[in-house]
Amino acid sequence: MKTQAEHARSGRTTPAMEAVAAVERVPATVVMAELASGRAVLPFNPAHRGLEPAIAGIAFRTKVNANIGRSGGASGDGCELGKLRAALRAKADFIMDLSVGPRLAGLRRRMLAACPKPFGTVPIYEAIERVRGRAEALTAEGLLSVIESQARQGVDFMTLHAGLRLRDLPLAARRKAGIVSRGGALIARWMASHRAENPLYSRWNDVMDICRSHDVTVSLGDGLRPGCLADAGDRAQFSELDTLGELVRRCRGRGVQVMVEGPGHVPLNRIPAQVRREARVCGGAPFYVLGPVVTDVAAGYDHISAAIGAASAACHGAALLCYVTPAEHLGLPTSREIHEGVMAFRLAAHAGDVARGLPGARDWDDAMTEARIRFDWKRQFRIALDGDRARRRYIQGRRARAPGSDFCSMCGRDYCAIRNSKKLCGALDSRAGRG
Amino acid sequence: MKTQAEHARSGRTTPAMEAVAAVERVPATVVMAELASGRAVLPFNPAHRGLEPAIAGIAFRTKVNANIGRSGGASGDGCELGKLRAALRAKADFIMDLSVGPRLAGLRRRMLAACPKPFGTVPIYEAIERVRGRAEALTAEGLLSVIESQARQGVDFMTLHAGLRLRDLPLAARRKAGIVSRGGALIARWMASHRAENPLYSRWNDVMDICRSHDVTVSLGDGLRPGCLADAGDRAQFSELDTLGELVRRCRGRGVQVMVEGPGHVPLNRIPAQVRREARVCGGAPFYVLGPVVTDVAAGYDHISAAIGAASAACHGAALLCYVTPAEHLGLPTSREIHEGVMAFRLAAHAGDVARGLPGARDWDDAMTEARIRFDWKRQFRIALDGDRARRRYIQGRRARAPGSDFCSMCGRDYCAIRNSKKLCGALDSRAGRG
Repeated sequence: MKTQAEHARSGRTTPAMEAVAAVERVPATVVMAELASGRAVLPFNPAHRGLEPAIAGIAFRTKVNANIGRSGGASGDGCELGKLRAALRAKADFIMDLSVGPRLAGLRRRMLAACPKPFGTVPIYEAIERVRGRAEALTAEGLLSVIESQARQGVDFMTLHAGLRLRDLPLAARRKAGIVSRGGALIARWMASHRAENPLYSRWNDVMDICRSHDVTVSLGDGLRPGCLADAGDRAQFSELDTLGELVRRCRGRGVQVMVEGPGHVPLNRIPAQVRREARVCGGAPFYVLGPVVTDVAAGYDHISAAIGAASAACHGAALLCYVTPAEHLGLPTSREIHEGVMAFRLAAHAGDVARGLPGARDWDDAMTEARIRFDWKRQFRIALDGDRARRRYIQGRRARAPGSDFCSMCGRDYCAIRNSKKLCGALDSRAGRG
Repeated sequence: MKTQAEHARSGRTTPAMEAVAAVERVPATVVMAELASGRAVLPFNPAHRGLEPAIAGIAFRTKVNANIGRSGGASGDGCELGKLRAALRAKADFIMDLSVGPRLAGLRRRMLAACPKPFGTVPIYEAIERVRGRAEALTAEGLLSVIESQARQGVDFMTLHAGLRLRDLPLAARRKAGIVSRGGALIARWMASHRAENPLYSRWNDVMDICRSHDVTVSLGDGLRPGCLADAGDRAQFSELDTLGELVRRCRGRGVQVMVEGPGHVPLNRIPAQVRREARVCGGAPFYVLGPVVTDVAAGYDHISAAIGAASAACHGAALLCYVTPAEHLGLPTSREIHEGVMAFRLAAHAGDVARGLPGARDWDDAMTEARIRFDWKRQFRIALDGDRARRRYIQGRRARAPGSDFCSMCGRDYCAIRNSKKLCGALDSRAGRG
């Protein structure tokens, strides 16, 4: 079996490429070229039944990933499937299950069956569960065995913290917030206790063999992503990034699809340089950012803080945005918070697409504006980012209006700017003999 | 009586300047210099009893304005006072009352008495009410009389749409969304029906006389702000901006404090140039932006869309951010939505301050990070942007935790990255003989 990247490089389009070309409204040859160059990934594990192909890359609509998953005692399986449905209803493009704890394989099987979107995992969570939570007891074989079993199950992409090296630990120890990546901290504990190199790094060829044979897209985890503004862009982060650049080259050499994960917590003014640096160091591999949040103080509003950072990242070239929910830094998100997070991030992704001039991106805004100036509320609710919410909120204010009125409840009839402006334009038009 | 700008230009600091200097942690001479140059405004009407002085300008913390006010039948007076309290509780820095309809003066008197923050209005709303909603019946004398009576009441700053000129109407008529400024559309209707110049513009010297004698800060309204992405940065907008630049110079010539209002709806990539252009055309007068929203499709989430634009604007030099609430484009905000809007904008303002390197801005983030890595939840809730919300959300997830535990409910105990990272750092430190 060949990976999508290998097919692309041999100049062949696949049904999956054709499907995404139709969705993205570009020729299939563009999809092929982007996959061949490694600037895009099409996570498409043939074992994932019912998957609708989706692509992430600079030439395409910016995508949004929703993380779900239970932790310890919190959130039973039924609930996680409910969260998956909430994320899908809100139109997340990619889904990651970050569950830890017992019986992960069964939960994952049910999720994969219910998820038509590219589905990702962090295999170290299952590996650590198999050794009952003792990071020190992890083995390279154990990790590879989990990666392989998840690949067989149909996982489309996997976060692998292979770039966090033994040499980076002293750099991480100097930080204000240390290591805030759950997988990264586990790998770091293992390296520190064994005084040995990261097993994912030392066994990278074996990892690639598995990913290649199942066409699992590698998502290179940033175990040293900054966990606060103070740590953004420090030596630890960029030392790991250099290794990620090396691993990207090795993936490409083996025909494995690869993208690169990014921060985290970054001051707004430094996001453009972070995105450019990833592109340079990692040869244009799709950048998959977590937020980033642009302040550390906004617990309860981190979906907004992160949407600000994500919009800037998308504007400057990030291809996939991992959402952050209002529960970030406080707990696991509820279905409602998942909805909020996906919506905030779809908004950020679209704002980024408009800002970077993605062809056709602004058509959506223009259509909304046309409906708005015509007071065509039904059409506004049909095409809005979240028409259900807009409709509910509009109805709530309707006590102040007659039904079907040509003004909203913000200004009231006599003061409605659009109403006044339209009258005015009508008057100017008729004077100019245009109507 | 002299205005704060005149005192500053004569090299004298006032008690109000000293008060803001203490709050902003800068020498009073910095406040004086910024006011003298016109790069800052200190809206401080001596008739506004109980006002705590606050300054808006590039050298200081970015401020957030909350709009409140009733429209037509919606939201009675008691309710507007409740909304004022909601905005103050959420720590809005400036308040504007945009009420239209009957009995505005009495409502305003009660609001001014209850508002220790700079308080602004849009006098044309009361002027139009006095002519029972018929824009055509407005007179220059009527407008001046309202401006004067509001100045006597203690209004600290007023939005005056004086820059929208007769010559601009054909430009506005060509737009996709026309005129979306409520005051701007009223002025435009008046000009179109009388075929005469904007009375605020033709009587600008008289307007300035009133503002000077009460030290009312002029906020030059942008009647032609774009109401959709398609209209952003068009000839109509920039034609008005040129007039605003002229009016800024005239205000400064008369010792009147002045700031300039800005859009509205702007694609994210074009915000920096919009901010720079205002600074150039208006001689560095404080830029007071409404959002801007960065997409037209996000009704129900426009506080997030606008926070994205506002953070970018603040990062590039906007001094005052007018919030947008989740009700924008759909109705008048409830107290709860006012809270959401203020919080989203305080977040954006702070992110902007950190990004533009305002001295000391990041201390807040660093303090939050220190509390976070110590698992000092009480301190986090004490200093967070919205500690009450953070606490409530944290408690909601606590079922999964023992009280006082050293991990949050996101990862659970065994997988807590911070916990693992701290163990690791402790181990590395003790090996290095540091602990």
